Amino acid sequence: MKNGAREGFQFELATYLADQDFVYGPEPELYTPIAGFYSYGLLGKALKNKVEDKVRKVFVEHGFFEVEFPLISPEIIWKASGHLDGFNDSVISCSKCKSSFRADKLIEEETGKEIAGAKDEDLLAAIKRNEIKCPNCKGRLEWEITRHSLMMKTIIGRDIVVYNRPETATTTYLPFKRYVQFFRGKLPFTVFQIGKAFRNEISPRQHLLRMREFTQAEAQIFISKDQKQNFPPFKEVENDLLPLWSEQLQKSDKAPESVSLKNALKNNYLKNQAYAWALLLAYKVFLEMGIPKEKMRFRQHHSNERAFYADDAWDLEIELNSFGWTECCGVHDRTTYDLSQHAKFSKQKLVVRTEDGKEIVPDVIEIAFGVDRPFYALLDLAFFKRKDDDKRTVLSLPPSMAPVDVGVFPLIKKDGLPEKAKEVLQALKGSGIRTYYDDSGSIGKRYSRLDAGGIPFCVTIDHDTLKDNAVTIRERDSLKQTRVKIKDLRGTLEKFLEKGFSEK
Amino acid sequence: MKNGAREGFQFELATYLADQDFVYGPEPELYTPIAGFYSYGLLGKALKNKVEDKVRKVFVEHGFFEVEFPLISPEIIWKASGHLDGFNDSVISCSKCKSSFRADKLIEEETGKEIAGAKDEDLLAAIKRNEIKCPNCKGRLEWEITRHSLMMKTIIGRDIVVYNRPETATTTYLPFKRYVQFFRGKLPFTVFQIGKAFRNEISPRQHLLRMREFTQAEAQIFISKDQKQNFPPFKEVENDLLPLWSEQLQKSDKAPESVSLKNALKNNYLKNQAYAWALLLAYKVFLEMGIPKEKMRFRQHHSNERAFYADDAWDLEIELNSFGWTECCGVHDRTTYDLSQHAKFSKQKLVVRTEDGKEIVPDVIEIAFGVDRPFYALLDLAFFKRKDDDKRTVLSLPPSMAPVDVGVFPLIKKDGLPEKAKEVLQALKGSGIRTYYDDSGSIGKRYSRLDAGGIPFCVTIDHDTLKDNAVTIRERDSLKQTRVKIKDLRGTLEKFLEKGFSEK
Repeated sequence: MKNGAREGFQFELATYLADQDFVYGPEPELYTPIAGFYSYGLLGKALKNKVEDKVRKVFVEHGFFEVEFPLISPEIIWKASGHLDGFNDSVISCSKCKSSFRADKLIEEETGKEIAGAKDEDLLAAIKRNEIKCPNCKGRLEWEITRHSLMMKTIIGRDIVVYNRPETATTTYLPFKRYVQFFRGKLPFTVFQIGKAFRNEISPRQHLLRMREFTQAEAQIFISKDQKQNFPPFKEVENDLLPLWSEQLQKSDKAPESVSLKNALKNNYLKNQAYAWALLLAYKVFLEMGIPKEKMRFRQHHSNERAFYADDAWDLEIELNSFGWTECCGVHDRTTYDLSQHAKFSKQKLVVRTEDGKEIVPDVIEIAFGVDRPFYALLDLAFFKRKDDDKRTVLSLPPSMAPVDVGVFPLIKKDGLPEKAKEVLQALKGSGIRTYYDDSGSIGKRYSRLDAGGIPFCVTIDHDTLKDNAVTIRERDSLKQTRVKIKDLRGTLEKFLEKGFSEK
Repeated sequence: MKNGAREGFQFELATYLADQDFVYGPEPELYTPIAGFYSYGLLGKALKNKVEDKVRKVFVEHGFFEVEFPLISPEIIWKASGHLDGFNDSVISCSKCKSSFRADKLIEEETGKEIAGAKDEDLLAAIKRNEIKCPNCKGRLEWEITRHSLMMKTIIGRDIVVYNRPETATTTYLPFKRYVQFFRGKLPFTVFQIGKAFRNEISPRQHLLRMREFTQAEAQIFISKDQKQNFPPFKEVENDLLPLWSEQLQKSDKAPESVSLKNALKNNYLKNQAYAWALLLAYKVFLEMGIPKEKMRFRQHHSNERAFYADDAWDLEIELNSFGWTECCGVHDRTTYDLSQHAKFSKQKLVVRTEDGKEIVPDVIEIAFGVDRPFYALLDLAFFKRKDDDKRTVLSLPPSMAPVDVGVFPLIKKDGLPEKAKEVLQALKGSGIRTYYDDSGSIGKRYSRLDAGGIPFCVTIDHDTLKDNAVTIRERDSLKQTRVKIKDLRGTLEKFLEKGFSEK
């Protein structure tokens, strides 16, 4: 999509998401909204829960254990992690309307080119070279970059300085000694955390993609350097394919390649087995959420983009209709950096003992992403694919991710049909299939409403139901219908939700 | 239990929960801990997720929709809700060691009597009357009550004053106009929210029961005054029993009574059908979590305990071994208070139109609780019931709430048994049954470890398994065993997890 078309689509999508109760905001809508804060609405929260459940499912199946650390933690932790000193945005202001903007993002948006990691003078040069003006009023930008901390500070008790955490990862490292005990000192071990994080961005934009409060999901693999090279689970998946766009391919203007893990190591795209396995795991999480293969690629960070301690870093990007290719997950080899920092600041030993009796600080490979972006991606892709005609707008969410599984409608609100519908609801109770009952207004309007919310199936109770105890199941996208006995309804819907609709 | 025994049990339980990876803290353990912050550990987080899933399940089955509002919101909201002016603790300090304490809680702990809602002079009088000293150093307490705000303030952008929310409920009311649209203007409608809240308590104590950061679950019933009296779902449950301890019964030193909802209205224990239904729903949530009937009661607030706007308020209390009867949920008739306040402060109309065309502000009945307390209650009850003998400590958590469902153990780590065990894991994959594989150390030690973590079943793969493709299932509490074919294992475990173990 061209930039203009994209902006139109962004606006249309945001409006749709609010109207259809997926995302409200910026919040508080009722008062004066603050940029970068959104709420998940009556349908949206159900979808967000499903996204989180999928993350949990894939990680737990692969042997990861979840933890939940407080969102608030004291200054010293963020001193150790480097956030307190290094976690700030480059800010440039407009000389006319006094608005402030994040300089690097402004340049990227105006030029379409990455400028991450640039120094202040490079940012100023890029603004000059590209003749960038204030996006609000077209005024001249001030010739100065200032630094704005992203940390949100508060006070506990009477005087303890603490911060709302800017990421989950650091807080996942802190109970390291507990993990060593639980896993009986044996590397590798794997832990993850899903939870809120906070960044006081100076000018949050792009809807759910850059918020001031967001939900992260970050998984950590604690592993020795030897195990990275020789990682037993690798063997089982070495022929699986990943869409890799290495630094090399990017620089020579070539497209991403579909490469098996085995070949990715042979070609030196990837450095070690454990890292390759982690990339694949990230890919599986996103596939499980229902993001289609052809909309994903892994882009390697350029050497100047990476954190100074990172040994390697690739982003999983999703091609959004609203914003183009967008980073939705990063896999980082953080080496021993974090554990060493916390050992230094806490003056404690953070080590494990290897089989030959040596004490080592494990490396950490991190799979880091947010829940909000895949949530947004699912809706972006479904909304783009929607079918609009005179009668209906259909949101084609994957059935396994729909906020509600099935609408239950008596054809009309009399003749005992609502009572019969209650029987149907009863038959589905406790099954885990989420129903939505509606008996008011025309049946057509009721269908339209659920189509627009992405609900995959509707069950209709009509006059024949009173005689034959059968109901009609209608599929959202194809409008195909099938009739089943009430006693078989639960099993049929379970099958449809897992494997898709079939007429017989 | 006597107070002394209770304190011993509290300490023993807290130690156990940390050692067994349920709850770490106070956090950050690695640095200088701050009172009132705990983390959920490698087993604890799985249990916490189950508690939240049960809450979600019961509310969704009863037609509630979930939302997620930001944790951070601007000053005006907390001005409107009354928190900014009224949400503070009475603090008293020690003249000797300078420690500060929450005066009302200190008095309650020392006297065993409720003193909620007392004025400063009453607090001072109670301290004098009961000769209360500093609990840390036994020094004399200062003759002055000061007020300490519980709100955690931070700054967004460059100068917007915001707070970490002190409760979820207020933030659930804010998208009211969105709800009216979604529910097409028809009362009653029902919404809930599960999420973090923050209170800067001056002296948090009692482990997970009074934290500075905690997880709330609060459900709201928006309803008209007429509908409260005449609430159709009431009819279906009017004969269900609740353990009610009315203000009257408390004042006349009588025990709680088991009363049907119908009779509770007839006897004027409860004021209306919708409120009675809400109490029952709260009870169902806690039963679903696995809290036993005989450990629960509903205690009515005394008229002087209630918020000035509240029409009625009852607490669901659980009898803990560590702290005695403890408030774990409150059901409050908040009337039109919150919506009226937000209408006034936002200068917007927050109304629905009734069928006869009148605009009304709905009443709100709230079911308010935290996730942390029932989590703690489950462990308190299971730990008290544990069987300690020479060989094992058994945590008898309800099987449906265990952090992991089944341990999978090859008898020894050779002869192809670990490979066979992998087949067993494969057979359970995708079933939703959570497994924990362990092949190191003696089988006895492996059993003990899972017993202590409350894991209800272990599956053992032995040499016979190689011949007959059958494994042994061992039940945690009874130590009974049964042998099943691997192909039947999934179905058998699903049955056991739902209905309990049986030998055939």
